[in-house]
Amino acid sequence: MSDLTLAVDIGGTKFAAGLVEPDGRVVAAERVATPRGGDAETLWETLTGLLDRLEPPPGVAGVGIGCGGPMTWPAGEVSPLNMGGWRGFPLRERLAARFPGIPVRIHNDAICLAVAEHWRGAGRGSAAMLGMVVSTGVGGGLILGGRIVDGGTGNAGHVGHVVVDPGGPPCGCGGNGCLEAVARGPGLAAWALAQGWSPGGAGSPGRTGSPGRARSPEDPGGEPSGQDGELYREEGTATARRLAADAAAGDPIALAAMTRAGRALGIAIASAVNLCDLDLVTIGGGLSQAGGLLFGPLEEALREHTRMGFAQRVRVVPAALGQDAGLVGAAALVIAGDRYWSPGP
Amino acid sequence: MSDLTLAVDIGGTKFAAGLVEPDGRVVAAERVATPRGGDAETLWETLTGLLDRLEPPPGVAGVGIGCGGPMTWPAGEVSPLNMGGWRGFPLRERLAARFPGIPVRIHNDAICLAVAEHWRGAGRGSAAMLGMVVSTGVGGGLILGGRIVDGGTGNAGHVGHVVVDPGGPPCGCGGNGCLEAVARGPGLAAWALAQGWSPGGAGSPGRTGSPGRARSPEDPGGEPSGQDGELYREEGTATARRLAADAAAGDPIALAAMTRAGRALGIAIASAVNLCDLDLVTIGGGLSQAGGLLFGPLEEALREHTRMGFAQRVRVVPAALGQDAGLVGAAALVIAGDRYWSPGP
Repeated sequence: MSDLTLAVDIGGTKFAAGLVEPDGRVVAAERVATPRGGDAETLWETLTGLLDRLEPPPGVAGVGIGCGGPMTWPAGEVSPLNMGGWRGFPLRERLAARFPGIPVRIHNDAICLAVAEHWRGAGRGSAAMLGMVVSTGVGGGLILGGRIVDGGTGNAGHVGHVVVDPGGPPCGCGGNGCLEAVARGPGLAAWALAQGWSPGGAGSPGRTGSPGRARSPEDPGGEPSGQDGELYREEGTATARRLAADAAAGDPIALAAMTRAGRALGIAIASAVNLCDLDLVTIGGGLSQAGGLLFGPLEEALREHTRMGFAQRVRVVPAALGQDAGLVGAAALVIAGDRYWSPGP
Repeated sequence: MSDLTLAVDIGGTKFAAGLVEPDGRVVAAERVATPRGGDAETLWETLTGLLDRLEPPPGVAGVGIGCGGPMTWPAGEVSPLNMGGWRGFPLRERLAARFPGIPVRIHNDAICLAVAEHWRGAGRGSAAMLGMVVSTGVGGGLILGGRIVDGGTGNAGHVGHVVVDPGGPPCGCGGNGCLEAVARGPGLAAWALAQGWSPGGAGSPGRTGSPGRARSPEDPGGEPSGQDGELYREEGTATARRLAADAAAGDPIALAAMTRAGRALGIAIASAVNLCDLDLVTIGGGLSQAGGLLFGPLEEALREHTRMGFAQRVRVVPAALGQDAGLVGAAALVIAGDRYWSPGP
């Protein structure tokens, strides 16, 4: 019996698999791009090919899996939003058949990231924390009493669907005014474009990002560059990165967009802090790298809406773990199951 | 050793004490009005007088206390908002000195009400519930994984300070746009008065509550009756009851006020459901007795903002327990401490 745990991290852009030591160190990892438009078996073969390359030793202690939601839980039939080939795919069961006789456990990928931060990252020692990811979507996981909160169906932590603006923009969930609708990268970029933002403008030679550049929504201004336009249509996060860069360069519309996202984050976090008596919030994901442009307005709105004594102690910090975080959190479902796994084996 | 538990329920309008059987039945109870403006020892003597009248048998199994917040927890130094005589009063310690050698446990009164509904009321069997009180304030308690959630400092459950309208009215907590600022009885009545509501108008002979009665905020209309005005200044809940009655009689401003409160409740509940994956919400307190006038708009807003599959299962129901609920919940801290008490003895 090895003391290594096999960790699997299934996302819309990449699949990753790794071997994790009992202390959380990732000692080997393999990655592959998620096949675009692959059917169920193509996706499965991509995963098994990845596992073959990793060559896990005989007798790993268990298998931990993080996967994009939604899924039935703890059964682990997955239907990741951005992976049409898997709809009700029995991912946990298929992996359990391949690795018989050991625990095979699965959770939402955002929950695995929160678990990773609590176990080995910026959230160590917190009794009550929310681990967030702000990127193409906005997700999270809740740790209360030092243990993962599953909620009734394993879906606790959906902070992206806390309502921040009841009359706000439509959300992918079917509602409107959710944090995710306002603060996800693509939503943010769309808002900025509607306000007249011209991607890359502020950073271009001879352009200074002065307030005079602001355009009314009626004035289309220049077309976005082909590259940015395409990336925006494809994914949106590249455009959000451009938006953050333009904000850093002083573009007033880009700055307003970052402020809008930061305030929405602060309001949603305040609601979560007041409801769940949190002491810590960690924020990871692409947009979190915007630094003060995002965290400044976030802190301002958060402090406006957390005035009760207990709520004022909350700290919001960037996530500490890098690209291995998903693997670390998935492994923790097995290695530290006493804190991060509630259902039976 | 008796198998009875002594339960104490300390509120801004009354003190109650009771003896509770292991199955949650209250077999004896005494009540007394909270002394207005009493200093610390006056309040304490009121409580001890109440306990003397109750005559608990020797050797009760423990003492459970529900008290208005805030308090340090689990130490139980209480500073109830509406009881100025107690500021940092060591209520738990004083009761522990009077009942030595047995568990003496304290929690926020709203949390005790949630515990009562989960243990013996409308929330039995729920794995993930929010128990709410909507009255002069809006409070609550969270039960996740079938256990009470304390949060880091015993303050989890403050659903009244989930933000429902970031640009909304100021809240007693110092923030603005909190659910409580919109939906608490006095806030609701104040809003209706500002819209031109004339308390009791719709129910008076010869008045029909037609839309023509609506007045602009600039038009003061008739003064509220002395009684209602006094009650509003004193407490606000009596006026909220009048508001509900007027809404039931068809007064359009009163109806709009109930709709406004119901929608705010629905939005805050949706945020809590999405974040915590709840299957049930119970609502007690005076305003909850408005029935469909409140629950109709609540359900409408809730369903608009809970569109993810897991969130759609949530049910919102009236609380089932009556005036003894506070005693039942306080007793449960001792009797069912495995589920409703996390700190040590």
